[in-house]
Amino acid sequence: MAGKGANTSATKGKKKEVKKETGLGLSYKKDENFGEWYSEVVVNGEMIEYYDISGCYILRPWAMSIWEIMQTFFDAEIKKMKIKNCYFPLFVSSGVLQKEKDHIEGFAPEVAWVTKSGESELEMPIAIRPTSETVMYPYFSKWIRGHRDLPLRLNQWCNVVRWEFSNPTPFIRSREFLWQEGHTAFATKEEADTEVLEILELYRRIYEEFLAVPVIKGKKSEHEKFAGGLYTTTVEAFVPNTGRGVQGATSHCLGQNFAKMFEINFENEKGEKCMVWQNSWAYTTRTIGVMVMVHGDDKGLVLPPKVASVQVIVIPVPYKDANTQGIFDACAATVKTLNEAGFRAEADYRDNYSPGWKYSHWEMKGVPLRIEIGPKDLANNQVRAVRRDNSAKSDIPMAGLVEGVKETLDNIQQSLFDVAKQKRDACIQVVNTWEEFAEALGQKKMILAPWCDEEEVEKDVKARTKGEMGAAKSLCTPFDQPELPEGTLCFASGKPAKKWTYWGRSY
Amino acid sequence: MAGKGANTSATKGKKKEVKKETGLGLSYKKDENFGEWYSEVVVNGEMIEYYDISGCYILRPWAMSIWEIMQTFFDAEIKKMKIKNCYFPLFVSSGVLQKEKDHIEGFAPEVAWVTKSGESELEMPIAIRPTSETVMYPYFSKWIRGHRDLPLRLNQWCNVVRWEFSNPTPFIRSREFLWQEGHTAFATKEEADTEVLEILELYRRIYEEFLAVPVIKGKKSEHEKFAGGLYTTTVEAFVPNTGRGVQGATSHCLGQNFAKMFEINFENEKGEKCMVWQNSWAYTTRTIGVMVMVHGDDKGLVLPPKVASVQVIVIPVPYKDANTQGIFDACAATVKTLNEAGFRAEADYRDNYSPGWKYSHWEMKGVPLRIEIGPKDLANNQVRAVRRDNSAKSDIPMAGLVEGVKETLDNIQQSLFDVAKQKRDACIQVVNTWEEFAEALGQKKMILAPWCDEEEVEKDVKARTKGEMGAAKSLCTPFDQPELPEGTLCFASGKPAKKWTYWGRSY
Repeated sequence: MAGKGANTSATKGKKKEVKKETGLGLSYKKDENFGEWYSEVVVNGEMIEYYDISGCYILRPWAMSIWEIMQTFFDAEIKKMKIKNCYFPLFVSSGVLQKEKDHIEGFAPEVAWVTKSGESELEMPIAIRPTSETVMYPYFSKWIRGHRDLPLRLNQWCNVVRWEFSNPTPFIRSREFLWQEGHTAFATKEEADTEVLEILELYRRIYEEFLAVPVIKGKKSEHEKFAGGLYTTTVEAFVPNTGRGVQGATSHCLGQNFAKMFEINFENEKGEKCMVWQNSWAYTTRTIGVMVMVHGDDKGLVLPPKVASVQVIVIPVPYKDANTQGIFDACAATVKTLNEAGFRAEADYRDNYSPGWKYSHWEMKGVPLRIEIGPKDLANNQVRAVRRDNSAKSDIPMAGLVEGVKETLDNIQQSLFDVAKQKRDACIQVVNTWEEFAEALGQKKMILAPWCDEEEVEKDVKARTKGEMGAAKSLCTPFDQPELPEGTLCFASGKPAKKWTYWGRSY
Repeated sequence: MAGKGANTSATKGKKKEVKKETGLGLSYKKDENFGEWYSEVVVNGEMIEYYDISGCYILRPWAMSIWEIMQTFFDAEIKKMKIKNCYFPLFVSSGVLQKEKDHIEGFAPEVAWVTKSGESELEMPIAIRPTSETVMYPYFSKWIRGHRDLPLRLNQWCNVVRWEFSNPTPFIRSREFLWQEGHTAFATKEEADTEVLEILELYRRIYEEFLAVPVIKGKKSEHEKFAGGLYTTTVEAFVPNTGRGVQGATSHCLGQNFAKMFEINFENEKGEKCMVWQNSWAYTTRTIGVMVMVHGDDKGLVLPPKVASVQVIVIPVPYKDANTQGIFDACAATVKTLNEAGFRAEADYRDNYSPGWKYSHWEMKGVPLRIEIGPKDLANNQVRAVRRDNSAKSDIPMAGLVEGVKETLDNIQQSLFDVAKQKRDACIQVVNTWEEFAEALGQKKMILAPWCDEEEVEKDVKARTKGEMGAAKSLCTPFDQPELPEGTLCFASGKPAKKWTYWGRSY
């Protein structure tokens, strides 16, 4: 595994040449040109490769491994809830797709249609699923007969296609993306309501415990809810740099709308015919983009340890006349010890790159912890540990390696969340009037405002804030409601306010 | 978990009604009408639901769990080989798709084309991947520069679409299917050759160790090899009932054909520009269909324990006046003990079905081992175990439950393989002349014949055997070659034979 020796004689000129070749270093700064910085960091961090079809992206192993770690967690959790995996076809016939009117109105403009196979025209165009409600529910109708067939709880991991034309952005808005979609049917609304929140809690955990991104749990407005559903709950994230909210993941109660259109009925214990109550819920590869936007910095990606496919990168730092073999052996021993303790650790023994180049390379890729081993460390039976998140350096004695690394990684995970939460919280602005609202929006805030909860008023807010930066809309009504003193008026309409709701621009 | 008591008073009439309702029992026999039997068994066993678009099928949880078990195995094995997962887009532009001429000729008639999004015509039609060589290799060209970038070893788990018009069959031939596709690039042909066989061995293990289906490892003929590749290796299965071979999974060496077209070059250690050597390899959900065809019987599915999502089904058999609660408790204790020992066990406590109905139900679903617990078993501190594969019954003392179940399941797994191999071997016929060949083909044999290895001769064999049942073709040239005495002539051309090759009809 170890290389034959390190090339320490790399001249500055040679290093520069290498740098150019591999695109090391970012040309844009996060605070100065966020959009360009983001595009550059996902490419240079080797998460994404741009594809020759606009709006489609290649997920490279560095991104895919993050998706797989989240998938392993979520899949195990839903299996505990007795939700089973299945796979429904990619294609849906146009008749079935159009069965639920509100639903198809929400998706119609983005549906991709297959009309040809080989040289032959198909008799009828066939749609590619933008989501699978209409794909699945005719079969729910077939499979559900009596109360003993309920609950029916299915999930699938798959790709979906939404042919959007506005601003494709890697992970955040792409024409094809990966997701899981859960589809469940219950005898009672109570069971459905309970599941909606159980799933939402898993989504919160993905963001907060895995991606170290703080989110706000709440309910979407009537205007923003899932097309055809009864109500939509969401975990909302926020990107301070752009002042935009991001719908992190959504868990919908569909009520009985789809049950009615697709005739999903069952006979209850008394022999009466009833309609089922349904949910659907999903999270997507968007999660990864939100994480990059929140934690990344001018040196590149910053990955939380829980989702990093390499948590610790070990780099030998041999000097002239030093015991190079001893250093390489110490690196190998360090990796071995850490792997055996369950950490994802690797060493970079490449002999055509200098240690300094390697530092930059792994910083670009966002590896949470770098361990350097040089002659001094070897002599002192220690390693030097450098955190990616705050550049803090410390010496860890070899004898306490596992404990030291564990503590540091735990600390990084927590610290990433704390810092992100602090920044997010600093962006939250409570307002009461339209003037305050307009000012806060200009300052890219996530705005908490008292609202009358009328759809027309939300449309009006959108219309009044239209502009170059995009209109403001409601993000969510947080479950955690501050007190609403009697007589409080809606910030936008002046009518009596019913609730506090978050507003802002959004992705 | 336990039901409140079993309904043992079900009249025959009521049972019949239930039977009708759930479609229990098969109307076709495997030996009499194989095609109808197969369609019925995959539906009644709850693996497949037919979909309203022809050639597309719904994979229900009972099938999906088998896929997931194989995926867990294979994914871990390839990760050990340092192959990394990624995800490339579903779509490919027509220019890129057509870059490798032989390749596209092989796939063109089956390619599905997207031409519209919403109400708008796309500027250029976009293809849905039938396989991802042309999707991936432009980026291989970009990522590979020097010998240090090699090997590049990627895999993805995804869906692909081949819009075939001939005889769609669940799992075996469907317009969309799930698979993994590995795509790798090496500096030398030797490394590529080695990987081809390492992967083929994993495919053999999936068939033989997991699905208990015997396969023959070998090489495809020039006529049957992967379009655009250098050579194709395969694991070939055989379905005795229909006398057809099945290409089980293939591992291709692509040579340098794609490297040439996509300009995938690297600088070697001497600074010379070289082309990479590439492989691609895949197995699909077809594996599940082969398993059903080989092991299923007139009572339904027969699942090998290693892939069964329920390995042991525990059924309470209470009689009038018996200690029903005691029986239910014993069932619960049995499931708990087995689950804790790592088996996938469940109990069926439903009180609206008789034990007999439950036996048939779980036999239809192919659960390898049924455990019955009645008053006598309770009194004797034992359970009754009934094997799905051969209906053998035995009593297992509760004290030796885990050991007894382990031994029985191991035995079932081995026995399924042994029986299948015996049946398959009985179908193999060695022939030397055209007359023997024609006779063996009429008897639905898997025919091993000496062959001159000329493509024209294979085409000729196809032409001469055309008929209602479909033409014969070469299945594979087995790696394990019997002795070929000097002077042996080709069965079809009479020219000197170069090798023994399997021939037959195939799926």
